[in-house]
Amino acid sequence: MNIPIPEVPVRRPEITRRRTAALAMFFGAAMLAFGQAQAADHLKSWNDGPAKKAIVEFVESTTHKGSPGYVPPAERIATFDNDGTLWAEQPMYVQALFAFDRVKVLAPEHPEWQTQEPFASVLKGDLKAALTGGEKALLEIVMATHAGMTTDEYRQVVKDWIATAKNPVTNRPVLEMVYQPMVELLGYLRGHGYKTFIVSGGGIEFMRPWAEQTYGIPPEQVIGSSIKTKFEMRDGKAVLVRLPELNFIDDKDGKPVGINQHIGRRPTAAFGNSDGDRQMLEYATTGSGVRLGMLVLHDDKEREFAYGPATGLPDSHVGTFSQSLYDEAKQRGWVVISIKNDWKTVFQAKR
Amino acid sequence: MNIPIPEVPVRRPEITRRRTAALAMFFGAAMLAFGQAQAADHLKSWNDGPAKKAIVEFVESTTHKGSPGYVPPAERIATFDNDGTLWAEQPMYVQALFAFDRVKVLAPEHPEWQTQEPFASVLKGDLKAALTGGEKALLEIVMATHAGMTTDEYRQVVKDWIATAKNPVTNRPVLEMVYQPMVELLGYLRGHGYKTFIVSGGGIEFMRPWAEQTYGIPPEQVIGSSIKTKFEMRDGKAVLVRLPELNFIDDKDGKPVGINQHIGRRPTAAFGNSDGDRQMLEYATTGSGVRLGMLVLHDDKEREFAYGPATGLPDSHVGTFSQSLYDEAKQRGWVVISIKNDWKTVFQAKR
Repeated sequence: MNIPIPEVPVRRPEITRRRTAALAMFFGAAMLAFGQAQAADHLKSWNDGPAKKAIVEFVESTTHKGSPGYVPPAERIATFDNDGTLWAEQPMYVQALFAFDRVKVLAPEHPEWQTQEPFASVLKGDLKAALTGGEKALLEIVMATHAGMTTDEYRQVVKDWIATAKNPVTNRPVLEMVYQPMVELLGYLRGHGYKTFIVSGGGIEFMRPWAEQTYGIPPEQVIGSSIKTKFEMRDGKAVLVRLPELNFIDDKDGKPVGINQHIGRRPTAAFGNSDGDRQMLEYATTGSGVRLGMLVLHDDKEREFAYGPATGLPDSHVGTFSQSLYDEAKQRGWVVISIKNDWKTVFQAKR
Repeated sequence: MNIPIPEVPVRRPEITRRRTAALAMFFGAAMLAFGQAQAADHLKSWNDGPAKKAIVEFVESTTHKGSPGYVPPAERIATFDNDGTLWAEQPMYVQALFAFDRVKVLAPEHPEWQTQEPFASVLKGDLKAALTGGEKALLEIVMATHAGMTTDEYRQVVKDWIATAKNPVTNRPVLEMVYQPMVELLGYLRGHGYKTFIVSGGGIEFMRPWAEQTYGIPPEQVIGSSIKTKFEMRDGKAVLVRLPELNFIDDKDGKPVGINQHIGRRPTAAFGNSDGDRQMLEYATTGSGVRLGMLVLHDDKEREFAYGPATGLPDSHVGTFSQSLYDEAKQRGWVVISIKNDWKTVFQAKR
């Protein structure tokens, strides 16, 4: 999407009388009204409310030449968490579904998995039992299922899997559980010269094969957790082999580290939905000048899921939005997006 | 620089006779001639010869719709080594000069350095002795001088230093020892929709502060070696502190790994000058479709430096271009750029 940025936002009326402060105020208001009218075309799935207002004001302020908050195009960086921010993460992360399916596909090559945890429980379909081993169990599953092939092979495996993967609760394709308002926001920001990045705790190579088509975000603007890779020549072709060894965890404290490693600039705006995004928002919003931090609060049981435990919503191990994060948001002026109140539509129309 | 890409490269003459194979050949030749004429405006410092011809043919072939080698804009990735490929690396890497200068600046805080190697030799000005400790000594110096401050502070230190840094042989500012033909090549590629990346063994944070102004390459398109960083809140501001711990070495086998980590696509074209670039060129050029690999050979003692040891040039520990790399280039069809023969001008005009 390419939204032309008007050099002069409002056509200057033919006024010969002297300029007054009142007139300047009128222009300011008109400029904002114009911006909002323009945004309305691109943020169709957002209700008029504090969240949409904050987005439009931020974009107007950072992209109009002469505005005190003006940010040069090269420095316009917006970072987005993925799970729970750009698409649904309940009842569990999509990548966990992928890993469990991979265990089933690979089981014939691993007879020992029939009795070895956490694989045995996955094969029995008892995911709860499989995850009693906590992070270590999940990591074991990821290592066993995501490594041992080239990056090209892995990309194809992910592409094939995601084309038919469905959410176990709604039975809708996972790629249809992308948030329409956030896709519009990505386009609106890009239309105003922002480079949009994903900064996710999920696997960098798991997201890249579909992020471009789904979000318009190219592979080089996807940042995530990773395992190590090793360069090899195979049949005269250079390949990278995925190793069962952690390289980087792009979560919590790791998000600013990943941002600095990949982008080398402090983001102007950052968007998340959980405690894992706290440091990314701190990093973005404690920079100088106008900054925007936003957090999606999942408070819509009817249309999506409801979890927090912020504001008394049910607790969740997936995408925890704690009360302390909520309190920090209030204190730092981060804008909380209420799915219930701020989003006219939640999911994308069928693709 | 923005070079418009003509949809139809040659205006079709009014011909009513039947199309013949000869006519098609004429069009092909005319198209290439047009491309070369257009390139001539942008590759002014390149002599007409095999290197310039290879560049123009590659760009024509990958960017003209309908060409069998056509590459969609999103997949047009060109990666460049820095030292010895984009700017001079003799008599030693610019970052080594920086590290030695930092030792001198920091010495008052480190009285122990007066007797402790490799620092003692650096302080005596005996760089040869300092480097008898090899890679380990250099690494020790880098850790001691590049860490212990925030990324923001480090950026400023680099900016201040490089503004006045001079090459110890030519006494010219290091930023004036940038290769004019390569700057033109970067612009020519970008003008045809290529995203240009630096992929260097040098420090990622050492290059970013000046790469944008010097090469037109923004921080998010700079890949390099790095030390670890740690997230901290200092006086209410989120910062990243640089730690004296290696994170990643972006050289040799590490270059394809770094490319995959940062870009997530196989480059369409790769440019280097030494054995450290071998795997990057292998990775780029063993992909499918039209690919370009090029190596700068420093064979011009009069205007720059002469070192190899490929083709019988003097040996060098900085930027070694071995005979085996030269042989592989011939075998794989990588194009060797002779500074002596292919470059009309070597360095940028005074900035």
